[in-house]
Amino acid sequence: MKNDGFIGTKMNITKKEVKSYLQRLYPFCRSISGSGLRETLAIIKEYIPIYLKELKTGTKVFDWIIPEEWHIQGAHIKDPKGKKIIDFKKSNLHIVNYSIPINKKIHLKELKKHLYTLPQIPDAIPYITSYYNRDWGFSMTYSQYKNLNDGIYEVFIDSEIKKGKLSYGEYFIKGKSAKEILLSTYTCHPSLANDNLSGIVLSTYLARFVSEQKNYYSYRFLFIPETIGSLAWLSQNKKNIHNIKYGLIVTCVGDSGNSTYKKTRDGNSILDQAAEKMLIDSKEPYKIITFDPADGSDERQFSSPGFNLPVGSLMRTPYGQYREYHTSEDNLSFIKPKYLLNSLDKYLKILYILENNRYYLNCNPHGEPMLGKRGLYRSFGSNLHLRGLNKAFMWILNYSDGDHSLLDIATMSNIDFQVIKEAADILHRAVLIKHANKNEPA
Amino acid sequence: MKNDGFIGTKMNITKKEVKSYLQRLYPFCRSISGSGLRETLAIIKEYIPIYLKELKTGTKVFDWIIPEEWHIQGAHIKDPKGKKIIDFKKSNLHIVNYSIPINKKIHLKELKKHLYTLPQIPDAIPYITSYYNRDWGFSMTYSQYKNLNDGIYEVFIDSEIKKGKLSYGEYFIKGKSAKEILLSTYTCHPSLANDNLSGIVLSTYLARFVSEQKNYYSYRFLFIPETIGSLAWLSQNKKNIHNIKYGLIVTCVGDSGNSTYKKTRDGNSILDQAAEKMLIDSKEPYKIITFDPADGSDERQFSSPGFNLPVGSLMRTPYGQYREYHTSEDNLSFIKPKYLLNSLDKYLKILYILENNRYYLNCNPHGEPMLGKRGLYRSFGSNLHLRGLNKAFMWILNYSDGDHSLLDIATMSNIDFQVIKEAADILHRAVLIKHANKNEPA
Amino acid sequence: MKNDGFIGTKMNITKKEVKSYLQRLYPFCRSISGSGLRETLAIIKEYIPIYLKELKTGTKVFDWIIPEEWHIQGAHIKDPKGKKIIDFKKSNLHIVNYSIPINKKIHLKELKKHLYTLPQIPDAIPYITSYYNRDWGFSMTYSQYKNLNDGIYEVFIDSEIKKGKLSYGEYFIKGKSAKEILLSTYTCHPSLANDNLSGIVLSTYLARFVSEQKNYYSYRFLFIPETIGSLAWLSQNKKNIHNIKYGLIVTCVGDSGNSTYKKTRDGNSILDQAAEKMLIDSKEPYKIITFDPADGSDERQFSSPGFNLPVGSLMRTPYGQYREYHTSEDNLSFIKPKYLLNSLDKYLKILYILENNRYYLNCNPHGEPMLGKRGLYRSFGSNLHLRGLNKAFMWILNYSDGDHSLLDIATMSNIDFQVIKEAADILHRAVLIKHANKNEPA
Repeated sequence: MKNDGFIGTKMNITKKEVKSYLQRLYPFCRSISGSGLRETLAIIKEYIPIYLKELKTGTKVFDWIIPEEWHIQGAHIKDPKGKKIIDFKKSNLHIVNYSIPINKKIHLKELKKHLYTLPQIPDAIPYITSYYNRDWGFSMTYSQYKNLNDGIYEVFIDSEIKKGKLSYGEYFIKGKSAKEILLSTYTCHPSLANDNLSGIVLSTYLARFVSEQKNYYSYRFLFIPETIGSLAWLSQNKKNIHNIKYGLIVTCVGDSGNSTYKKTRDGNSILDQAAEKMLIDSKEPYKIITFDPADGSDERQFSSPGFNLPVGSLMRTPYGQYREYHTSEDNLSFIKPKYLLNSLDKYLKILYILENNRYYLNCNPHGEPMLGKRGLYRSFGSNLHLRGLNKAFMWILNYSDGDHSLLDIATMSNIDFQVIKEAADILHRAVLIKHANKNEPA
Repeated sequence: MKNDGFIGTKMNITKKEVKSYLQRLYPFCRSISGSGLRETLAIIKEYIPIYLKELKTGTKVFDWIIPEEWHIQGAHIKDPKGKKIIDFKKSNLHIVNYSIPINKKIHLKELKKHLYTLPQIPDAIPYITSYYNRDWGFSMTYSQYKNLNDGIYEVFIDSEIKKGKLSYGEYFIKGKSAKEILLSTYTCHPSLANDNLSGIVLSTYLARFVSEQKNYYSYRFLFIPETIGSLAWLSQNKKNIHNIKYGLIVTCVGDSGNSTYKKTRDGNSILDQAAEKMLIDSKEPYKIITFDPADGSDERQFSSPGFNLPVGSLMRTPYGQYREYHTSEDNLSFIKPKYLLNSLDKYLKILYILENNRYYLNCNPHGEPMLGKRGLYRSFGSNLHLRGLNKAFMWILNYSDGDHSLLDIATMSNIDFQVIKEAADILHRAVLIKHANKNEPA
Repeated sequence: MKNDGFIGTKMNITKKEVKSYLQRLYPFCRSISGSGLRETLAIIKEYIPIYLKELKTGTKVFDWIIPEEWHIQGAHIKDPKGKKIIDFKKSNLHIVNYSIPINKKIHLKELKKHLYTLPQIPDAIPYITSYYNRDWGFSMTYSQYKNLNDGIYEVFIDSEIKKGKLSYGEYFIKGKSAKEILLSTYTCHPSLANDNLSGIVLSTYLARFVSEQKNYYSYRFLFIPETIGSLAWLSQNKKNIHNIKYGLIVTCVGDSGNSTYKKTRDGNSILDQAAEKMLIDSKEPYKIITFDPADGSDERQFSSPGFNLPVGSLMRTPYGQYREYHTSEDNLSFIKPKYLLNSLDKYLKILYILENNRYYLNCNPHGEPMLGKRGLYRSFGSNLHLRGLNKAFMWILNYSDGDHSLLDIATMSNIDFQVIKEAADILHRAVLIKHANKNEPA
């Protein structure tokens, strides 16, 4: 089938597939570097042909430096009676990410300076990191913490911090145009499901689907450690950054909350308009929030003033706004494949709008053309589907003046974008409208 | 009396006159062509000197072609017992407008394919047309329809469709300027009162009153069949269309509903501002709706992208939003002369604002002029009327900077436009303000 | 201490000082000229070195002429029994301001034409003036008025209207820039506390404080009779008016009502933005109203179209909106030093914003700089105050792009301006941001 742009057909992915992929990724102790990250990228590569890129420790990336690699084999705490009360094998959240190696006996009072808990969620293990401040520590539930007896504890962390490389995955899918849409997700969190295995899984399936389509835009999918990874990528791609037309950060897409779209820095980009229209058309409740340089993910790097790229983010419940965030409760029971697939469909529909958002010119701009003689007028005899499109025909004909795109018309008329697109295709075939200038998205 | 512009004085038209005019026009079986339309234009001509224009069948008007004329003499249905159950003489809505001639006996089952009813209003006859699709049919009440007995019916339509002409009426009233204000109403509906005898009657009286005034703008009143008539007029007047500064479609102005103004395509033209200010000043409830290319009257033609004229419409309850719309219940009891006269007054006040919306310059722009020495200051001794104008004086003096018109000032200050206009006249006579550039409306 | 701009430190003024100053000023029978006005200016001069300026009677100031001086020694009414029922000594509001001298016996009926009362506040004496209409009159409570017995009354006004001068006080405080901020208050009302002794007192303390600071802007404080005084000043300073960047009218700042800011004529000046942000940051309830050329004080002169200066006004309850306005109930019990000091603090904070509202450029615009290596990242070890500033750091870094001032950033982020300013100073010292162009307020 010939296709002007991207096809919005639903993807054929089962909940079972999603679940199985999530289960494979869940156990690894990911970080911003090291083997957990590499193993994760290797699994992604089984699904889509990502290109692995590594930057050496010490490489300067803007104001930052690629850190040393962190490796962790095991870790535990033994209580005064010699009982292993914390074991890294049971949860990789127990260990503060980037903990230095340690092996000694210390008094509880001293140990407590290195323990992290969440009194407000007494049975959850918090997720703690110390990437750039050399330290060590353990996370545990507050329930366990408050029952610790006085005495001498054995603390053991079998970790290594050494020169190495920072790894990320990249998948570029060439379209008709060099202008590209960036989809970035982060791969540095250990066993946390919504934040951000959900983003990795969604990005994988979206990339695979996009690669099977004929597209106007080129697409670039990034699987990177948060912050340092986006800075690393930006530092390696300075020459091509001007090609990025829009970007989306894929994160927190699997929980049961309503969809939330975080706008680009500009707040009124075509991407923002497309995302809002998609959400309206979904007929589901949603929330739109604004860009916040003090609270967010990699859009903060892509939207720093030196780049100022229009990068938004479609989530469900935003990071930090759900109780389970950054705790052991953000596990595979917290998210559901059906919510992840719903989010995937919404990403797809944003891309569908961006690909198909054309400008047309009315070929008969003086008055309304006579639809009846072309079999396009709703009449008692006309088929029901055509009658449903009549309203869309009228809106498109009137506003196909070169100043209004299909997205503008869909928004003004409050008609679903897909209906406007279908109606425009019919009018185009009937030579009632023609492309304004080149046949390119707005 | 010398007059810069249009006088807003109430017109001296009685409810009785309005009623009598409505009653004369009501019975004709109008259509987009033919004798009912010609007879209607002849009656209008008794009130105002409209010019009759006719275009031959087959004339190309943009994407359309002037259709053949339709003439109807009579029509009926006889039931299996030979009883005349439908007779065109009783209501010209019984016959589908533009029905082809027919004279045969058919079974009820076959007949039903040509019958139109409104189950939701069981005692109303719906108004149905088939201008461009050659067909025949009858409208009847649902009450009657559901009691039809099985059997053979005689259907008889004494109509004729033949080459002829499409007729419309036009009345041009020259003003000081070649720039014109268009008032267009449609004359193609048979015995329907609000839609649109009310529009014809209002336009007639408005035209007569306008012709008696000394105006800045020229005025053009059109009495045309909907859609094809406006296209026909536009096709004949391409050269002068650029002179149209504003337009209004006069329709549905006689029912008891609140006034509703439908904005121009642009949505923020001076006409839109004037109409909204008039409605605010009226102190009556009102509604403002936006331009909708898929639902409307001839503004859709005038505002098609090739013309893009700022044409609004002041109605009461909009077409399609009252139960009686396009049924036999939209009869002379449904509308009232007092509502029609109220609408007429509102049209007049819109024109009053457009005619008098001047820009002035403060002659003493440095500080406030001393009104006291000119007898214009509200003081304990000053007359009450002047004291009421003091607020208007202050607003006009401050904003007469060349950037704000009287309408802008009236809107900002929430003072009635007529008060602002009166205050401006007093300040002008006192040489406290002067015309900015030429003495022309904004 | 080196200081880029104005310091927002609280001023050290006691309620006692304020009370004492108010008490000294209260008794004088001020007017737009004359000895009450001169004595008031002399007292102000004890606090701050104002320069006294006088314009001769008959001097043309734009459309106005400096009026003759009015002097009043005493006045009374004696009832038919010879009892002094009204005595100027008891309240200088008893006499209509600018009353001509009179000494005669008249019948009650005739007297009543010269009596002013407020039936809706029966125990209050209204404040009445007749500056430009030569007349005489007395104000009294309605309670007294309604009990007047028929008969012959003696009216006596020992006043004088003669050639003289109109006086005002001016205090100019030179800053780094010739651009100036105007603070104007009026000195023409007799014994009325909120309107406007409160304004005089606030302006005095503010001027004294400003004079002790090192400022970017120059400041000009005016103590003038309302209307004629501002016109007089404008007429004498035509050449320098272009230097006025913002202005504020100081009036009605001592009552218990919420703060009310009246916007400049433009309605969106930086002054308006600064005032609104100050009010938001105050966490107290407030109201913002728009410029109104028909209701206001000297901002109407400064904002007349020939000058069009951005002049706002920060009040508490606006003139005319409190019951006590222009009556003997607007006395020293009606206002409180604590409210006046609260208003003073708010004026100070507006100036603080205007002085410190800089544009910066991010020195590391590509991505977010690494705050950790500079000790500026909120971490478990960092001090609490720095952690509180982290959000401000992020906002400033992202929006220091030359297009957003500190006020813009504070407004967008909803962070207190003072916090944004402090955070910007820290980032500036850390060479993470630099001044955009010159180091000047926006």
